Amino acid sequence: MEVKLASSYGFCFGVKRAIEIAETHKNAATMGPLIHNKSEINRLKDDFNIGLYESIDEVKEGDTVIIRTHGIPRNDRKELKSKNVEIINATCPFVTTPQQIVKKMTAENYHIIIFGDIDHPEVKGVMSYGDDNVTVVANIEELEKIVFKHNEKFATVAQTTKKKEEYLQIVNYLILRHKIVCVFNTICDATFENQDAARALSKEVDVMIVIGGKTSSNTKQLYSICEENVESYLVEDENDLKKEWFEGKKLCGVTAGASTPDWIIKNIIEQLKKY
Amino acid sequence: MEVKLASSYGFCFGVKRAIEIAETHKNAATMGPLIHNKSEINRLKDDFNIGLYESIDEVKEGDTVIIRTHGIPRNDRKELKSKNVEIINATCPFVTTPQQIVKKMTAENYHIIIFGDIDHPEVKGVMSYGDDNVTVVANIEELEKIVFKHNEKFATVAQTTKKKEEYLQIVNYLILRHKIVCVFNTICDATFENQDAARALSKEVDVMIVIGGKTSSNTKQLYSICEENVESYLVEDENDLKKEWFEGKKLCGVTAGASTPDWIIKNIIEQLKKY
Repeated sequence: MEVKLASSYGFCFGVKRAIEIAETHKNAATMGPLIHNKSEINRLKDDFNIGLYESIDEVKEGDTVIIRTHGIPRNDRKELKSKNVEIINATCPFVTTPQQIVKKMTAENYHIIIFGDIDHPEVKGVMSYGDDNVTVVANIEELEKIVFKHNEKFATVAQTTKKKEEYLQIVNYLILRHKIVCVFNTICDATFENQDAARALSKEVDVMIVIGGKTSSNTKQLYSICEENVESYLVEDENDLKKEWFEGKKLCGVTAGASTPDWIIKNIIEQLKKY
Repeated sequence: MEVKLASSYGFCFGVKRAIEIAETHKNAATMGPLIHNKSEINRLKDDFNIGLYESIDEVKEGDTVIIRTHGIPRNDRKELKSKNVEIINATCPFVTTPQQIVKKMTAENYHIIIFGDIDHPEVKGVMSYGDDNVTVVANIEELEKIVFKHNEKFATVAQTTKKKEEYLQIVNYLILRHKIVCVFNTICDATFENQDAARALSKEVDVMIVIGGKTSSNTKQLYSICEENVESYLVEDENDLKKEWFEGKKLCGVTAGASTPDWIIKNIIEQLKKY
């Protein structure tokens, strides 16, 4: 079977940066998984002895703690500071932006609408920079159910890995019903590029393989884009591949989420070519 | 022929208010036509001796000058003030809002996008509250031709009588390409209501008559909405009606722009019923 890679895929700027930061801080530990890719986290553990704290309670005085690419909630950061540890910030700058927007617009009495998944660490971090006047919606249906106070002014941000078309649905709904809506387009360009390339490739192949962590938001977005056009499968590594998916298929497209390292992509392509 | 009136039509809040202001200031003069309806302006002249200045140069010391519903440019207002006249402000409050938004957001270094007709008095007034950093666009095609500086932040307002669907096109174009777009929905609710009612009625009749001034923006919007669904005609008064428009027609719909007084609508309906 022939294999074709999307014109843009894999590691984004923020993930590359976070890995470089981790690699230059041997023996440090990350606060939550640094990126959404277990294999890469295992590599950092094996090659650089980078540990992983799942909870702030595990952090000990004198530790070097790396803040994950998705950022952490404001209170967690305060608690870290009080623990007398060295804090290394690997929060993606594109995630710091919505955090700061929420902080500023909350101070200016805007009602904040975050388009994102309330359980995603990035969103948990971003929303922690606001107060009670923050609403997280995962889709337009959730927004439609909410009754807002009359004459509220709104500021909107999106989780960096969301689809821009869905964000427009959210903001258009607000614009038609409210007088003031400040729209901050916080969706990351790298995400756009990977999404556009995946969309184009999925239209010309017989089957698509989307590589990435099962908990990675941007990988799931890529999968949902590909699935609209062609039979698609989400895999974390070559062990997830199933031979029967490719029976009778001539051309297989491959893309990968922003946390997927090149060595995993390479392994999968080699396996696919054998089918 | 049967005649059916739209469920919402004619005079809006701002026009009613302006006429009441004029009627309580006998012998005053308006700066520009008070509203976009010649017949009503003639009535105010005949019944209340309300004059009409086309240019500020005509204004004399001691005059009482009424500012038209569409507002006037900031410099004209300054010049009026320097002329030692009594100024009565009949600017529609829904027009004062975008003027104040442009003033505030210009001071905060936003690039202002006005969705409107650059020759319309309302837009001339609104844009005068900004500086060089104001761009007026009449449609999405005009916007697409403009190359903006990188990293600009935008604030958008719309002429109060514009179609909301077209405004969304403008703001969505900006949101997809720029990081910060503050959207002020300055389209007037009365305009919405008249538009929605005209749309509904035009789908159930054989022909539509849209009554209003030929220079009235909101009347032209109503006409363009009706025309999409059925044969439609724009008339200023009953003298514009042509018998042949109604040959073979059973049901005629009627709507009227926000500056159209009820007595003109009544005359037209009487004439239509005779066909």
